[in-house]
Amino acid sequence: MATQLYDLTVPLFIRGLRSLSGLLDKGEAFATDKGIDSVTLMQATLIEDMKPLTAQVQFACDTAKGTVTRLGELEPVAMADTEQSFAELQDRIARTIVLLEAVPREKIDGREDAQVVLKVPGAEIPFTGRSHVLTFALPNFYFHVTTAYALLRQAGVPVGKMDYLGGV
Amino acid sequence: MATQLYDLTVPLFIRGLRSLSGLLDKGEAFATDKGIDSVTLMQATLIEDMKPLTAQVQFACDTAKGTVTRLGELEPVAMADTEQSFAELQDRIARTIVLLEAVPREKIDGREDAQVVLKVPGAEIPFTGRSHVLTFALPNFYFHVTTAYALLRQAGVPVGKMDYLGGV
Repeated sequence: MATQLYDLTVPLFIRGLRSLSGLLDKGEAFATDKGIDSVTLMQATLIEDMKPLTAQVQFACDTAKGTVTRLGELEPVAMADTEQSFAELQDRIARTIVLLEAVPREKIDGREDAQVVLKVPGAEIPFTGRSHVLTFALPNFYFHVTTAYALLRQAGVPVGKMDYLGGV
Repeated sequence: MATQLYDLTVPLFIRGLRSLSGLLDKGEAFATDKGIDSVTLMQATLIEDMKPLTAQVQFACDTAKGTVTRLGELEPVAMADTEQSFAELQDRIARTIVLLEAVPREKIDGREDAQVVLKVPGAEIPFTGRSHVLTFALPNFYFHVTTAYALLRQAGVPVGKMDYLGGV
Protein backbone atom coordinates (compact mmCIF):
# COMPACT_ATOMS: atom_id res chain seq x y z
CA MET A 1 0.00 0.00 0.00
CA ALA A 2 1.31 3.41 -0.93
CA THR A 3 2.56 5.75 1.79
CA GLN A 4 0.49 8.54 3.30
CA LEU A 5 1.91 12.05 3.54
CA TYR A 6 1.68 12.08 7.35
CA ASP A 7 4.00 9.06 7.45
CA LEU A 8 6.49 10.96 5.27
CA THR A 9 6.64 13.84 7.69
CA VAL A 10 5.62 13.71 11.38
CA PRO A 11 7.15 10.35 12.45
CA LEU A 12 10.31 10.90 10.39
CA PHE A 13 10.86 14.36 11.87
CA ILE A 14 10.26 13.06 15.41
CA ARG A 15 12.66 10.20 14.83
CA GLY A 16 15.33 12.53 13.46
CA LEU A 17 14.87 15.06 16.26
CA ARG A 18 15.26 12.31 18.87
CA SER A 19 18.51 11.28 17.20
CA LEU A 20 19.61 14.92 17.19
CA SER A 21 18.79 15.14 20.90
CA GLY A 22 20.95 12.07 21.56
CA LEU A 23 23.81 13.56 19.53
CA LEU A 24 23.63 16.76 21.58
CA ASP A 25 23.61 14.74 24.82
CA LYS A 26 26.87 13.15 23.71
CA GLY A 27 28.22 16.58 22.78
CA GLU A 28 27.39 18.05 26.18
CA ALA A 29 28.87 15.05 28.02
CA PHE A 30 32.03 15.35 25.91
CA ALA A 31 32.37 19.06 26.67
CA THR A 32 31.94 18.42 30.41
CA ASP A 33 34.40 15.53 30.31
CA LYS A 34 37.06 17.46 28.43
CA GLY A 35 36.56 20.74 30.27
CA ILE A 36 35.43 22.48 27.07
CA ASP A 37 33.04 25.43 27.44
CA SER A 38 29.77 24.10 26.02
CA VAL A 39 29.14 27.49 24.39
CA THR A 40 32.33 27.00 22.37
CA LEU A 41 30.97 23.72 21.06
CA MET A 42 27.59 25.30 20.30
CA GLN A 43 29.40 27.93 18.20
CA ALA A 44 31.43 25.39 16.22
CA THR A 45 31.50 25.73 12.43
CA LEU A 46 33.33 23.88 9.63
CA ILE A 47 34.55 27.17 8.17
CA GLU A 48 34.23 30.80 9.28
CA ASP A 49 31.29 31.95 7.13
CA MET A 50 28.94 29.19 8.24
CA LYS A 51 26.06 28.91 10.66
CA PRO A 52 27.15 27.16 13.89
CA LEU A 53 25.86 24.06 15.67
CA THR A 54 23.15 26.04 17.48
CA ALA A 55 21.72 27.26 14.17
CA GLN A 56 21.78 23.75 12.67
CA VAL A 57 19.56 22.59 15.55
CA GLN A 58 17.25 25.58 15.09
CA PHE A 59 17.03 24.94 11.32
CA ALA A 60 16.27 21.23 11.80
CA CYS A 61 13.48 22.09 14.25
CA ASP A 62 12.11 24.85 12.04
CA THR A 63 12.16 22.70 8.91
CA ALA A 64 10.01 20.10 10.69
CA LYS A 65 7.71 22.70 12.25
CA GLY A 66 7.38 24.79 9.10
CA THR A 67 6.66 21.79 6.91
CA VAL A 68 3.70 20.52 8.94
CA THR A 69 2.44 24.09 9.38
CA ARG A 70 2.44 24.69 5.63
CA LEU A 71 1.05 21.29 4.72
CA GLY A 72 -1.68 21.31 7.35
CA GLU A 73 -2.46 25.03 7.08
CA LEU A 74 -1.88 25.22 10.82
CA GLU A 75 -1.43 28.35 12.89
CA PRO A 76 2.31 29.17 12.85
CA VAL A 77 4.07 28.81 16.21
CA ALA A 78 7.12 31.06 16.55
CA MET A 79 10.18 29.91 18.49
CA ALA A 80 12.82 32.54 19.28
CA ASP A 81 16.41 31.72 18.29
CA THR A 82 17.82 32.55 21.71
CA GLU A 83 19.31 29.27 22.96
CA GLN A 84 22.45 29.74 25.07
CA SER A 85 22.99 26.23 26.43
CA PHE A 86 22.62 22.58 25.50
CA ALA A 87 19.65 22.42 27.88
CA GLU A 88 17.94 25.18 25.91
CA LEU A 89 18.63 23.41 22.61
CA GLN A 90 17.13 20.24 24.08
CA ASP A 91 14.11 22.26 25.15
CA ARG A 92 13.72 23.60 21.59
CA ILE A 93 13.78 20.05 20.26
CA ALA A 94 11.33 18.85 22.92
CA ARG A 95 8.87 21.68 22.16
CA THR A 96 9.11 20.88 18.45
CA ILE A 97 8.37 17.21 19.11
CA VAL A 98 5.34 18.15 21.24
CA LEU A 99 4.09 20.34 18.40
CA LEU A 100 4.61 17.55 15.84
CA GLU A 101 2.88 14.98 18.04
CA ALA A 102 -0.18 17.24 18.21
CA VAL A 103 -0.59 17.44 14.41
CA PRO A 104 -3.72 15.47 13.43
CA ARG A 105 -3.05 12.95 10.67
CA GLU A 106 -6.11 14.19 8.79
CA LYS A 107 -4.54 17.64 8.41
CA ILE A 108 -1.63 16.15 6.42
CA ASP A 109 -2.95 13.11 4.55
CA GLY A 110 -4.50 13.98 1.20
CA ARG A 111 -2.50 17.20 0.83
CA GLU A 112 -0.14 15.68 -1.75
CA ASP A 113 -1.43 17.84 -4.61
CA ALA A 114 -2.29 20.95 -2.60
CA GLN A 115 -0.42 24.14 -3.43
CA VAL A 116 2.19 24.88 -0.79
CA VAL A 117 4.24 28.07 -0.89
CA LEU A 118 7.59 28.41 0.85
CA LYS A 119 8.30 32.03 1.69
CA VAL A 120 11.98 32.91 1.87
CA PRO A 121 13.52 36.39 1.94
CA GLY A 122 12.80 37.95 -1.45
CA ALA A 123 10.99 34.97 -2.99
CA GLU A 124 8.01 32.66 -2.81
CA ILE A 125 8.71 29.11 -3.99
CA PRO A 126 5.65 27.14 -5.11
CA PHE A 127 5.42 23.41 -4.45
CA THR A 128 2.79 20.74 -4.28
CA GLY A 129 2.47 19.12 -0.86
CA ARG A 130 4.31 16.05 -2.13
CA SER A 131 7.11 17.92 -3.89
CA HIS A 132 7.53 20.13 -0.84
CA VAL A 133 8.13 17.09 1.36
CA LEU A 134 10.24 15.07 -1.07
CA THR A 135 12.39 17.72 -2.75
CA PHE A 136 12.70 20.25 0.03
CA ALA A 137 11.62 19.26 3.54
CA LEU A 138 13.23 15.84 3.96
CA PRO A 139 16.56 16.64 2.24
CA ASN A 140 16.75 19.92 4.17
CA PHE A 141 15.89 18.32 7.50
CA TYR A 142 18.52 15.60 7.10
CA PHE A 143 21.01 18.22 5.90
CA HIS A 144 20.81 20.08 9.19
CA VAL A 145 20.83 16.98 11.41
CA THR A 146 23.85 15.66 9.49
CA THR A 147 25.62 19.02 9.68
CA ALA A 148 25.08 19.06 13.46
CA TYR A 149 26.54 15.53 13.51
CA ALA A 150 29.50 16.69 11.40
CA LEU A 151 30.24 19.59 13.75
CA LEU A 152 30.19 17.30 16.79
CA ARG A 153 32.27 14.67 14.99
CA GLN A 154 34.83 17.27 13.94
CA ALA A 155 35.12 18.43 17.56
CA GLY A 156 35.99 14.90 18.63
CA VAL A 157 32.64 13.92 20.17
CA PRO A 158 32.37 10.09 20.02
CA VAL A 159 29.32 9.86 17.76
CA GLY A 160 28.77 7.25 15.05
CA LYS A 161 26.39 6.59 12.21
CA MET A 162 24.03 4.60 14.44
CA ASP A 163 23.54 7.67 16.66
CA TYR A 164 22.37 9.49 13.56
CA LEU A 165 20.17 6.75 12.14
CA GLY A 166 18.62 5.81 15.48
CA GLY A 167 17.64 2.19 16.11
CA VAL A 168 17.46 0.31 12.81
CA MET B 1 -3.17 10.42 -3.48
CA ALA B 2 -0.64 8.56 -1.39
CA THR B 3 2.92 8.18 -2.64
CA GLN B 4 4.25 5.07 -4.39
CA LEU B 5 7.49 3.48 -3.20
CA TYR B 6 9.20 4.07 -6.56
CA ASP B 7 8.65 7.80 -6.10
CA LEU B 8 10.29 7.60 -2.66
CA THR B 9 13.44 6.05 -4.09
CA VAL B 10 14.53 6.22 -7.74
CA PRO B 11 13.77 9.88 -8.59
CA LEU B 12 14.98 11.12 -5.18
CA PHE B 13 18.26 9.23 -5.50
CA ILE B 14 18.79 10.50 -9.06
CA ARG B 15 18.06 14.03 -7.96
CA GLY B 16 20.49 13.77 -5.03
CA LEU B 17 23.22 12.18 -7.15
CA ARG B 18 22.92 14.97 -9.71
CA SER B 19 23.36 17.49 -6.91
CA LEU B 20 26.36 15.54 -5.65
CA SER B 21 27.82 15.58 -9.16
CA GLY B 22 27.41 19.35 -9.28
CA LEU B 23 29.08 19.71 -5.86
CA LEU B 24 32.04 17.64 -7.08
CA ASP B 25 32.30 19.75 -10.23
CA LYS B 26 32.65 22.82 -8.02
CA GLY B 27 35.21 20.98 -5.90
CA GLU B 28 37.32 20.04 -8.90
CA ALA B 29 37.14 23.56 -10.34
CA PHE B 30 38.18 24.98 -6.96
CA ALA B 31 41.15 22.61 -6.71
CA THR B 32 42.29 23.56 -10.21
CA ASP B 33 41.81 27.25 -9.52
CA LYS B 34 43.73 27.17 -6.23
CA GLY B 35 46.45 24.79 -7.40
CA ILE B 36 45.36 22.14 -4.88
CA ASP B 37 46.03 18.51 -5.78
CA SER B 38 42.57 17.08 -6.43
CA VAL B 39 43.59 13.85 -4.66
CA THR B 40 44.18 15.87 -1.49
CA LEU B 41 40.61 17.17 -1.69
CA MET B 42 39.28 13.66 -2.38
CA GLN B 43 41.01 12.48 0.81
CA ALA B 44 39.60 15.28 2.99
CA THR B 45 38.02 14.32 6.32
CA LEU B 46 36.56 16.31 9.21
CA ILE B 47 38.69 14.39 11.71
CA GLU B 48 41.39 11.71 11.32
CA ASP B 49 39.35 8.55 11.95
CA MET B 50 36.73 9.29 9.33
CA LYS B 51 36.02 8.10 5.81
CA PRO B 52 37.10 10.73 3.25
CA LEU B 53 35.21 12.54 0.49
CA THR B 54 35.77 9.69 -1.98
CA ALA B 55 34.10 7.21 0.38
CA GLN B 56 31.15 9.53 0.99
CA VAL B 57 30.49 9.52 -2.77
CA GLN B 58 30.84 5.73 -2.91
CA PHE B 59 28.46 5.32 0.07
CA ALA B 60 25.86 7.65 -1.45
CA CYS B 61 25.97 5.70 -4.72
CA ASP B 62 25.86 2.34 -2.96
CA THR B 63 22.98 3.34 -0.70
CA ALA B 64 20.91 4.21 -3.77
CA LYS B 65 21.99 1.11 -5.70
CA GLY B 66 21.62 -1.27 -2.77
CA THR B 67 18.19 0.06 -1.85
CA VAL B 68 16.62 -0.51 -5.25
CA THR B 69 18.41 -3.88 -5.55
CA ARG B 70 16.97 -5.08 -2.23
CA LEU B 71 13.51 -3.63 -2.82
CA GLY B 72 13.19 -4.93 -6.36
CA GLU B 73 15.02 -8.22 -5.79
CA LEU B 74 17.30 -7.23 -8.65
CA GLU B 75 20.60 -8.83 -9.58
CA PRO B 76 23.31 -7.01 -7.56
CA VAL B 77 25.74 -4.94 -9.63
CA ALA B 78 29.16 -4.55 -7.99
CA MET B 79 31.15 -1.35 -8.38
CA ALA B 80 34.78 -1.42 -7.25
CA ASP B 81 35.88 1.32 -4.83
CA THR B 82 38.91 2.29 -6.88
CA GLU B 83 38.26 5.89 -7.90
CA GLN B 84 41.43 8.00 -8.05
CA SER B 85 40.16 11.20 -9.66
CA PHE B 86 37.13 13.47 -9.76
CA ALA B 87 36.43 12.13 -13.26
CA GLU B 88 36.24 8.61 -11.87
CA LEU B 89 33.92 9.71 -9.07
CA GLN B 90 31.70 11.37 -11.68
CA ASP B 91 31.74 8.14 -13.67
CA ARG B 92 30.63 6.18 -10.56
CA ILE B 93 27.73 8.59 -10.10
CA ALA B 94 26.81 8.41 -13.79
CA ARG B 95 26.83 4.59 -13.78
CA THR B 96 24.66 4.58 -10.66
CA ILE B 97 22.16 6.96 -12.30
CA VAL B 98 22.02 4.73 -15.41
CA LEU B 99 21.33 1.74 -13.17
CA LEU B 100 18.59 3.63 -11.28
CA GLU B 101 16.97 4.83 -14.52
CA ALA B 102 16.72 1.21 -15.70
CA VAL B 103 14.76 0.06 -12.62
CA PRO B 104 11.17 -0.71 -13.69
CA ARG B 105 8.59 1.03 -11.51
CA GLU B 106 6.67 -2.24 -11.16
CA LYS B 107 9.65 -3.83 -9.40
CA ILE B 108 9.43 -1.27 -6.58
CA ASP B 109 5.77 -0.27 -6.22
CA GLY B 110 3.82 -2.56 -3.95
CA ARG B 111 6.90 -3.71 -2.03
CA GLU B 112 6.04 -1.58 1.02
CA ASP B 113 5.28 -4.56 3.25
CA ALA B 114 7.77 -7.02 1.75
CA GLN B 115 10.54 -8.32 3.98
CA VAL B 116 13.84 -6.65 3.16
CA VAL B 117 17.06 -7.68 4.86
CA LEU B 118 20.09 -5.43 5.08
CA LYS B 119 23.27 -7.46 5.41
CA VAL B 120 26.07 -5.68 7.22
CA PRO B 121 29.26 -7.24 8.60
CA GLY B 122 28.19 -9.53 11.42
CA ALA B 123 24.46 -8.81 11.27
CA GLU B 124 21.30 -9.01 9.20
CA ILE B 125 18.86 -6.18 9.86
CA PRO B 126 15.23 -6.92 8.95
CA PHE B 127 13.00 -4.20 7.54
CA THR B 128 9.82 -3.90 5.59
CA GLY B 129 10.24 -2.24 2.23
CA ARG B 130 8.71 0.95 3.59
CA SER B 131 10.72 1.05 6.81
CA HIS B 132 13.89 0.31 4.84
CA VAL B 133 13.32 3.37 2.68
CA LEU B 134 12.07 5.74 5.37
CA THR B 135 14.24 4.85 8.37
CA PHE B 136 17.42 3.73 6.64
CA ALA B 137 17.84 4.45 2.94
CA LEU B 138 16.77 8.10 2.69
CA PRO B 139 18.42 9.31 5.94
CA ASN B 140 21.59 7.41 5.03
CA PHE B 141 21.66 8.69 1.46
CA TYR B 142 21.25 12.32 2.53
CA PHE B 143 23.82 11.77 5.29
CA HIS B 144 26.52 10.92 2.75
CA VAL B 145 25.59 13.65 0.26
CA THR B 146 25.58 16.20 3.10
CA THR B 147 28.88 14.91 4.47
CA ALA B 148 30.43 15.27 1.00
CA TYR B 149 29.04 18.82 0.97
CA ALA B 150 30.51 19.47 4.44
CA LEU B 151 33.96 18.28 3.36
CA LEU B 152 33.92 20.54 0.30
CA ARG B 153 32.57 23.45 2.32
CA GLN B 154 35.25 23.00 4.97
CA ALA B 155 37.92 23.04 2.25
CA GLY B 156 36.68 26.42 1.06
CA VAL B 157 34.81 25.28 -2.06
CA PRO B 158 32.11 27.89 -2.82
CA VAL B 159 29.06 25.65 -2.43
CA GLY B 160 25.74 26.69 -0.90
CA LYS B 161 22.52 25.08 0.23
CA MET B 162 20.95 25.45 -3.22
CA ASP B 163 23.72 23.32 -4.73
CA TYR B 164 22.70 20.58 -2.29
CA LEU B 165 18.94 20.91 -2.69
CA GLY B 166 19.06 21.25 -6.47
CA GLY B 167 16.46 23.41 -8.19
CA VAL B 168 13.51 23.98 -5.86
